[in-house]
Amino acid sequence: MLKVGLLGAGRIGQVHAVNIAGNPRSTLVAVSDVYRPGAEALAEKFGAEARTTEEILADPAIDAVLVATSTDTHSDLIEQATAAGKAVLCEKPVDLSLSRAKACLAQASMTGRPVMMGFNRRFDPNFATLKASVQRGEIGKPELLSITSFDPAPPPVSYIKVSGGLFRDMMIHDFDMANFLMGEAPVTVRAVGSSIVDPEIGAAGDVDTAVVTLTYADGRIAVIKNSRRAVYGYDQRVELLGSEGLLQAQNMLENTVVRSTTQGVMSAKPTYFFLERYMPAYAAEWEAFVAALVDGAALPTSLEDGIAALAMAEAATESAKTGQAVSLDLHEELYQRAV
Amino acid sequence: MLKVGLLGAGRIGQVHAVNIAGNPRSTLVAVSDVYRPGAEALAEKFGAEARTTEEILADPAIDAVLVATSTDTHSDLIEQATAAGKAVLCEKPVDLSLSRAKACLAQASMTGRPVMMGFNRRFDPNFATLKASVQRGEIGKPELLSITSFDPAPPPVSYIKVSGGLFRDMMIHDFDMANFLMGEAPVTVRAVGSSIVDPEIGAAGDVDTAVVTLTYADGRIAVIKNSRRAVYGYDQRVELLGSEGLLQAQNMLENTVVRSTTQGVMSAKPTYFFLERYMPAYAAEWEAFVAALVDGAALPTSLEDGIAALAMAEAATESAKTGQAVSLDLHEELYQRAV
Amino acid sequence: MLKVGLLGAGRIGQVHAVNIAGNPRSTLVAVSDVYRPGAEALAEKFGAEARTTEEILADPAIDAVLVATSTDTHSDLIEQATAAGKAVLCEKPVDLSLSRAKACLAQASMTGRPVMMGFNRRFDPNFATLKASVQRGEIGKPELLSITSFDPAPPPVSYIKVSGGLFRDMMIHDFDMANFLMGEAPVTVRAVGSSIVDPEIGAAGDVDTAVVTLTYADGRIAVIKNSRRAVYGYDQRVELLGSEGLLQAQNMLENTVVRSTTQGVMSAKPTYFFLERYMPAYAAEWEAFVAALVDGAALPTSLEDGIAALAMAEAATESAKTGQAVSLDLHEELYQRAV
Amino acid sequence: MLKVGLLGAGRIGQVHAVNIAGNPRSTLVAVSDVYRPGAEALAEKFGAEARTTEEILADPAIDAVLVATSTDTHSDLIEQATAAGKAVLCEKPVDLSLSRAKACLAQASMTGRPVMMGFNRRFDPNFATLKASVQRGEIGKPELLSITSFDPAPPPVSYIKVSGGLFRDMMIHDFDMANFLMGEAPVTVRAVGSSIVDPEIGAAGDVDTAVVTLTYADGRIAVIKNSRRAVYGYDQRVELLGSEGLLQAQNMLENTVVRSTTQGVMSAKPTYFFLERYMPAYAAEWEAFVAALVDGAALPTSLEDGIAALAMAEAATESAKTGQAVSLDLHEELYQRAV
Repeated sequence: MLKVGLLGAGRIGQVHAVNIAGNPRSTLVAVSDVYRPGAEALAEKFGAEARTTEEILADPAIDAVLVATSTDTHSDLIEQATAAGKAVLCEKPVDLSLSRAKACLAQASMTGRPVMMGFNRRFDPNFATLKASVQRGEIGKPELLSITSFDPAPPPVSYIKVSGGLFRDMMIHDFDMANFLMGEAPVTVRAVGSSIVDPEIGAAGDVDTAVVTLTYADGRIAVIKNSRRAVYGYDQRVELLGSEGLLQAQNMLENTVVRSTTQGVMSAKPTYFFLERYMPAYAAEWEAFVAALVDGAALPTSLEDGIAALAMAEAATESAKTGQAVSLDLHEELYQRAV
Repeated sequence: MLKVGLLGAGRIGQVHAVNIAGNPRSTLVAVSDVYRPGAEALAEKFGAEARTTEEILADPAIDAVLVATSTDTHSDLIEQATAAGKAVLCEKPVDLSLSRAKACLAQASMTGRPVMMGFNRRFDPNFATLKASVQRGEIGKPELLSITSFDPAPPPVSYIKVSGGLFRDMMIHDFDMANFLMGEAPVTVRAVGSSIVDPEIGAAGDVDTAVVTLTYADGRIAVIKNSRRAVYGYDQRVELLGSEGLLQAQNMLENTVVRSTTQGVMSAKPTYFFLERYMPAYAAEWEAFVAALVDGAALPTSLEDGIAALAMAEAATESAKTGQAVSLDLHEELYQRAV
Repeated sequence: MLKVGLLGAGRIGQVHAVNIAGNPRSTLVAVSDVYRPGAEALAEKFGAEARTTEEILADPAIDAVLVATSTDTHSDLIEQATAAGKAVLCEKPVDLSLSRAKACLAQASMTGRPVMMGFNRRFDPNFATLKASVQRGEIGKPELLSITSFDPAPPPVSYIKVSGGLFRDMMIHDFDMANFLMGEAPVTVRAVGSSIVDPEIGAAGDVDTAVVTLTYADGRIAVIKNSRRAVYGYDQRVELLGSEGLLQAQNMLENTVVRSTTQGVMSAKPTYFFLERYMPAYAAEWEAFVAALVDGAALPTSLEDGIAALAMAEAATESAKTGQAVSLDLHEELYQRAV
Repeated sequence: MLKVGLLGAGRIGQVHAVNIAGNPRSTLVAVSDVYRPGAEALAEKFGAEARTTEEILADPAIDAVLVATSTDTHSDLIEQATAAGKAVLCEKPVDLSLSRAKACLAQASMTGRPVMMGFNRRFDPNFATLKASVQRGEIGKPELLSITSFDPAPPPVSYIKVSGGLFRDMMIHDFDMANFLMGEAPVTVRAVGSSIVDPEIGAAGDVDTAVVTLTYADGRIAVIKNSRRAVYGYDQRVELLGSEGLLQAQNMLENTVVRSTTQGVMSAKPTYFFLERYMPAYAAEWEAFVAALVDGAALPTSLEDGIAALAMAEAATESAKTGQAVSLDLHEELYQRAV
């Protein structure tokens, strides 16, 4: 039974707590949070203890920690936890700074402890099924990838200001999805972006609508579209054209009811936001982490994956500002886990 | 080049005129109609002559006639046209009286002239594709057929009164579709019906909503649902469960545009009514008639098919009135063309 | 906190145990099963005790029992549990004998204890959304209901022999769905059935394919189609035509991936069987039971609903045998909860 | 009755001939083709005369010509035909050379004769419906456009070599679609392309897979994806995200049949290629041209539209070669008809 400490008892920490406790091979031992009452309430619900992060990391009985704290603490906690001998599952991104993230990788690698990045979308049943179809060769060689990723509504501008910007905060998921589905990192990144949803976002120096084009060494192409606003709900789709066919992962809908009237034929909207859409993905993600630790299965995502996505986000941020294409020259070994 | 006389220049006659003139192997020579100016207008448009029906039947240069007149004239015109040596394509139904239709068959058979019934839905690309899939064995043995057939709006009660009733006027198409898809006639007919769309229809002695269950000698079952009112348009669907799968022919939509808003996801309605939905079917039907006459291909539908559907309509009418199942004992040879 | 005893630790009992334990307002106290080790394993997993049914019913600390035992024990357990002062949620059907079920109702009613029947499909998010749309008047007056309910594969003939037959064992869910959606019980039942999936089922005196037509006092009609075999998965669909539109609840699919190749466009199959499809429904069902007991909300299904469905199953069984329509004359009060 | 001369009797000329002859307000008078027997066969079929292009342009009885010849003759024929007083409907593109096209515009404008460019996709019922929805404000302000346009299979390399390249030959339709839907021309064009479908195409100096990003003065963005190979058929889709919703125009399918088996749920493929998909669009295009001439309606597309699309193709060709964004500075008046 894997004994787990949860760092962070906010919204996403609560999702993870359910999965940790619900998994037959893991148990939630302790919870920490900068807001102590939050840690206490969550701990009580699952028969765990509220502790400080330091206490959790110092406890030799705890095998693994799940890092669900604010982004600016990720690098430090990964370093501290691996140094303390813990296995780590960390929410994305590693850091807002690429150089800091690389330093974290260097430090964590020395400990030899497993670090998995929480790219939950890889575990979404739809995207995972699409990937499996690619791997079975069902569309031949993948050639042109298209990712549509729209949020239902923009976050407050106060959040935007500390988010690192759309490419690091929102599109980073899509960069990882591109790496996951194309099996390698791109060689160039071209980005355009603007703030047409909310001028306040533009005033804060960020964009709310963006298109990024990625090119690969062998001529393959990927395009990612992001918008902070899709009033009909969370729009999360992928399509991949290959030499022998097309794969599409469409949205999950709130229900299957269709109503036909004089107005037309009305179906349900997509599930509202990431908690609704990716709830099964979070459970599968945790199960994959447990399987890696308990069964010795390969970690499905790595710290290197986190750094690759971050490097792409940085390149896109630069490209959107300069209007120029940005080359990526990431060492091949950095992406071995992305394949 | 097949020389054709068209009997009847109403709405459906006009559809046929386009197909006769447009087909590369047939030409429209003459048109008759009880309303002479209608025949003249239609004839002029396609470079044909307006004549009386008698003149058309007496013209040895005319190879075939298309009967698109009112139902009460069908039997007489089939008899007269075949006696005059013409090949005949006649709109359904043969007659409202089963005994009269059988007499017509007896007479026409003696002439040896080909008579095809205008069961246009067999030529709809969707239903024809479904049938071809059945014949290729793609769902194994067909076991349970379901036909949904709703009109967008009920006709005037004045029409209802002379229509022969829902089972002869509307469901007769579905009876033929069942024969087409199941490849044989049923042995029992059970019908329920009511007038819940318009009480005036009930007052006229007819129903506007009906469900008929057909059972076959080997235990297979078909169910047909009819309503005179589907406010969203003409609803024409078939599904067929077999030992190895399910086939569905869904509605054709007015366009493929989908609009997602806060209200939901809105698609287009089905094409409005039979002229919109079955336009391609009418052209394919005429081509099949030409192919049978010119190439010697088998007639895809026969006068016997018309009589089978009419017998089923009569049985359903009786069953809906008595509440009892009605047995059908149709001679096997009557259905050889239905397979 | 509602203290619950679970009677029956089989497959469906295990599903209920998760929901009882997972619900924030209920706790699983004890489990019984004729196979003691099954009860022990399930109890241990959720921190409950394995006991005998008698011990559970005799424990004054237990508020409610969930009856998930074999059908032949349902009536007895409902009577004993209500006599012992417990609230009861019982899996369908009440009994295979209508008269026994009515006796059970009479006895249980005297105790005044709440008894809810486990018609889980009413709580399926799709069917519940459809019903809500009807109640909001979005399709006007419902007129013609169609229920498609196919199992992926027939059960062993040994099960068929003790099942009470397709109408009591399988279609009973659909009878309740008809009552749920039409808001009243029908006045006549017409059934046809045959054993075309598996002749062994016919040899055992049952059918595996059936169509039932229900008519209502005001002329409305419902049709239910059942097959024991749909090789593509569990097919659970409803459509309801109203004066102002059509509502359809379509199947839930295993995933949203679509693959387009030279062969065509391939989507995922429906979720495999009832545990996959109705998992969310079971949780919602339990929550509704808890809400009724704790909040004083109305019980969404009643013992009367169970009897109504059973009466319809009995009528259908008779109709399929005799070939005749069977009238139902159920007292109105019996169905007050079905509306 | 509009008297029409058809210049070019090839595949697309034949499509136009049917529409010219079938339209109630136009008649096909004469056909020319460099391959005389082709002109003769087509003329005979529709009761027209085979003539030389010079004879057609010199005939004062001819009101309009439809130019369906090879691309390298378009500019010359537009100039000659307008100089001869004819109204012109010309297949796209105006020319492969932007400067030549502009000279053609200058010359043709002086004649005052109407010139419409054959951007047939604007008349596709699906795209036209999408545009109408935008114009009704149903998705608020359009912000992010995505066009997917894949051919089923690449043309021979011999064709590629004289085609002007993918951006001028294939994507030019999509550039016009972007102008049509966004209602203005973009200010920058960014293109990436590669030859991953067929290395022979790359050896010929062209690409077969390309993504173009367009940005607009107000920050809006459009992205166009092209591939010369989609083995499942002609993939022609548009989606447009607006401030109040999303519009999608999906593919038209060969039929509506769905087959569910143990393998999954199989639907029909998209209609095969442009003749199948856009047949209704060609008829609507011709009707719009006739309406403009006969009724005085506005020409829905203009020579300026052709030049705008060509300028975008030229910019994309340059961008794909240099890797740099290319600015467009088209005079506003050039696009007044694109709105």
